[in-house]
Amino acid sequence: MKYQKIPEATIRRLSRYSRCLEEMEEKGEKVVSSAQLANKCIVNAAQVRKDLAYFGEFGIRGVGYYVRDLLNNIKKILGSNKEWRMALIGVGNLGSSLLAYKDFLKQNYTIVAAFDIDPPKVIGRVSEKLGKPVEVFHINRIKEVTKERKIEIGLIATPPSEAQSVANLLVEAEVRGILNFAPAQITVPEGFVVKDVFFTIILDNLAYLLSN
Amino acid sequence: MKYQKIPEATIRRLSRYSRCLEEMEEKGEKVVSSAQLANKCIVNAAQVRKDLAYFGEFGIRGVGYYVRDLLNNIKKILGSNKEWRMALIGVGNLGSSLLAYKDFLKQNYTIVAAFDIDPPKVIGRVSEKLGKPVEVFHINRIKEVTKERKIEIGLIATPPSEAQSVANLLVEAEVRGILNFAPAQITVPEGFVVKDVFFTIILDNLAYLLSN
Repeated sequence: MKYQKIPEATIRRLSRYSRCLEEMEEKGEKVVSSAQLANKCIVNAAQVRKDLAYFGEFGIRGVGYYVRDLLNNIKKILGSNKEWRMALIGVGNLGSSLLAYKDFLKQNYTIVAAFDIDPPKVIGRVSEKLGKPVEVFHINRIKEVTKERKIEIGLIATPPSEAQSVANLLVEAEVRGILNFAPAQITVPEGFVVKDVFFTIILDNLAYLLSN
Repeated sequence: MKYQKIPEATIRRLSRYSRCLEEMEEKGEKVVSSAQLANKCIVNAAQVRKDLAYFGEFGIRGVGYYVRDLLNNIKKILGSNKEWRMALIGVGNLGSSLLAYKDFLKQNYTIVAAFDIDPPKVIGRVSEKLGKPVEVFHINRIKEVTKERKIEIGLIATPPSEAQSVANLLVEAEVRGILNFAPAQITVPEGFVVKDVFFTIILDNLAYLLSN
């Protein structure tokens, strides 16, 4: 399999295919054609075939794909076939809703610790939302706790003014992946990866499409 | 100015430029070169020049761009130079955090009504978060209220199982834009636009980059 130079748009579609395939697997479906997968994922069939062609040979000519095999292969490619241990930084409104976000657990992304600077939220308080207790620590323990709990991804849900300094702490703690919900640009050294989730940037895109 | 066929990636970068330009304007900066803008937005300068070239002539040779003019022009292009009136559907954990999301107001995206099916949350209850009261209605009033309040965008923050039926209600109410936070694929007829905010799909992308 070729792992290199896969376009980012393909990677995003692979995630979507994996969600569709999971639903099919849950329903007991064994085999899927590229046309069926395309239809389910609302992508055109040629695009599906092109995306899957990056990874070569797991289709069966004239039949399609084995659902479970294709799903496993896509997850292996994405690196989503393992548990990713995450830290949440910022237990405000948005942060609290992330602690309760069911799709993280379903997809094997687990928040194993949370951090805040605000005293009432810290000192070992436990979030019991969804029966999934997450300990909330003072931010000054981030380096020690992320190391101890083998955390690889940090979710930043602080006010924008704090986002860069939190990112710096994560870099210092060698947490290599950051999902940034705070509406502020942050920079990290090479070897670290940031993805932003800026709701108003996506709304700008929607506004553009509605206006034109 | 050419408004047509601008690539989606350019549109996303234009939003980022507008955020950077706003910060510059707040600091009283009058003029910016493409290199300075690139540096601030963490994009390369050639990319900035290429993106802005879609819109022709608002640079000044040897100087750069007037901050306010460039900002206004970009906002006009994006359609973000007006207030967009939004409805929130689903006042659970995530929905409540969206009611309190400060960047919406800052960027002129205003939630003017919320809807839910869960009795304790409805019957005209008012969310007072951030001093911005938003009335919460029963979902069965969506058509009447969205029309009355001239709502153009719906934010779906329901459980995934309800997302499509809520999208259908929004379509019926002629709310043309949907920002979908529920981790479920939804379809809408032509003339309507859906953008998804799927946190775990973005995490898959991050996982891929961390694994490869």
